[in-house]
Amino acid sequence: MTLLTPDQLEERLRQIGAERYHNRHPFHRKLHDGLLTKQQVQAWALNRYYYQASIPAKDATLLARLPTTDLRREWRRRIEDHDGTGPGTGGVERWLVLTDGLGLDRDYVQSTEGLLPGTRFAVDAYVHFVRDRSILAAIASSLTELFSPKIISERVSGMLRHYDFISEETLAYFTPRLTQAPRDSDFALAYVREHARTPEQQQEVLSALEFKCSVLWSMLDALDYAYVDGKIPPGAFVP
Amino acid sequence: MTLLTPDQLEERLRQIGAERYHNRHPFHRKLHDGLLTKQQVQAWALNRYYYQASIPAKDATLLARLPTTDLRREWRRRIEDHDGTGPGTGGVERWLVLTDGLGLDRDYVQSTEGLLPGTRFAVDAYVHFVRDRSILAAIASSLTELFSPKIISERVSGMLRHYDFISEETLAYFTPRLTQAPRDSDFALAYVREHARTPEQQQEVLSALEFKCSVLWSMLDALDYAYVDGKIPPGAFVP
Repeated sequence: MTLLTPDQLEERLRQIGAERYHNRHPFHRKLHDGLLTKQQVQAWALNRYYYQASIPAKDATLLARLPTTDLRREWRRRIEDHDGTGPGTGGVERWLVLTDGLGLDRDYVQSTEGLLPGTRFAVDAYVHFVRDRSILAAIASSLTELFSPKIISERVSGMLRHYDFISEETLAYFTPRLTQAPRDSDFALAYVREHARTPEQQQEVLSALEFKCSVLWSMLDALDYAYVDGKIPPGAFVP
Repeated sequence: MTLLTPDQLEERLRQIGAERYHNRHPFHRKLHDGLLTKQQVQAWALNRYYYQASIPAKDATLLARLPTTDLRREWRRRIEDHDGTGPGTGGVERWLVLTDGLGLDRDYVQSTEGLLPGTRFAVDAYVHFVRDRSILAAIASSLTELFSPKIISERVSGMLRHYDFISEETLAYFTPRLTQAPRDSDFALAYVREHARTPEQQQEVLSALEFKCSVLWSMLDALDYAYVDGKIPPGAFVP
């Protein structure tokens, strides 16, 4: 292992995104290309809800470990983005607008009863990672947001074009993310460029991003297997 | 919710096994029926290794929480079964005899580098469950062993019959399990029959067994998707 410059480290991180980010997953291509049924899109939105709803818990777990006012203030904003400033606001609520628009019962969605076990285990692994690993690794694991504006643009335009059950209103979740994600990833990227100062720390940062890519990827593995291949596990949502 | 008698509780537990135990999974049927290639059996043994290797950690996590000498002595025996009484003994070692016999490099297997993320997340979820939930739920989550002698008999006879790369020696892991599993599950079943004394506790026991079934089931989902459907995620073992 050799010490990389900050630019080389960033290049390696972007390379991981190019190879492992879930925009390359077959389920994702099908979602964007209009090849899924409404029921399959329901399953995606229902399962992805658990990810959205767990992100504030993930961020609060990290917030509780951050050592300075500046870092905590920066990270607290992420929780505000997702939990909002009052009832009916914030990203989690906007995700429920999507599940509402797809005809899913809100209580059922929030109960997470019909979740795929693969979704639950992957999302919980992310929360545990942020709790158990170094602060550097925890911050680095958020760096998938470097790649999310591209996938969001593809997703919004593709879904609006292909599905008559999807409207701009039901996709309202994604609009603020186009500005929030770059702001957040700019901060996280600057942090890891500055704080990964040994080859070991740089490896930790690279591994954290690979881990996070595998969380998002395996959520789509589980969806594709259950709802495209039709092998729904016992107890999960049956459309 | 109504209070069940111990017999009724046991009947509900056995019902969960009949509906959700992984002997019903399509990958399992293919494994036993000789429909897999050697490479696919390698992928199964490689991924299942992480489960085997994590079981002593799971049991030690629970051991550390048990309140009495009697309970700890009972539970300690499980760790002895898996870790053995000296080098080259115990269940984890016997699993490596299987991966050796399948031609996998032992260092590679033990590194868990090629593991499917779905395997890692499911197995880690089991260890975390035993750490975070009540002792009653943690003990109940081991009750899949009620159903394992049947699957082991099917597995051993089916695999010996169908695969020329499998021998009695490579399947040596399973022989002691035919006596260990019933002994262990007898204890756990008696424990939950005695200690689940309210409807809420009984529900906790039933949910714990459902959870554990979903751990085993989702491991096979990930294998079937990656190695039978051919959608291997980035970074995982490529046969």
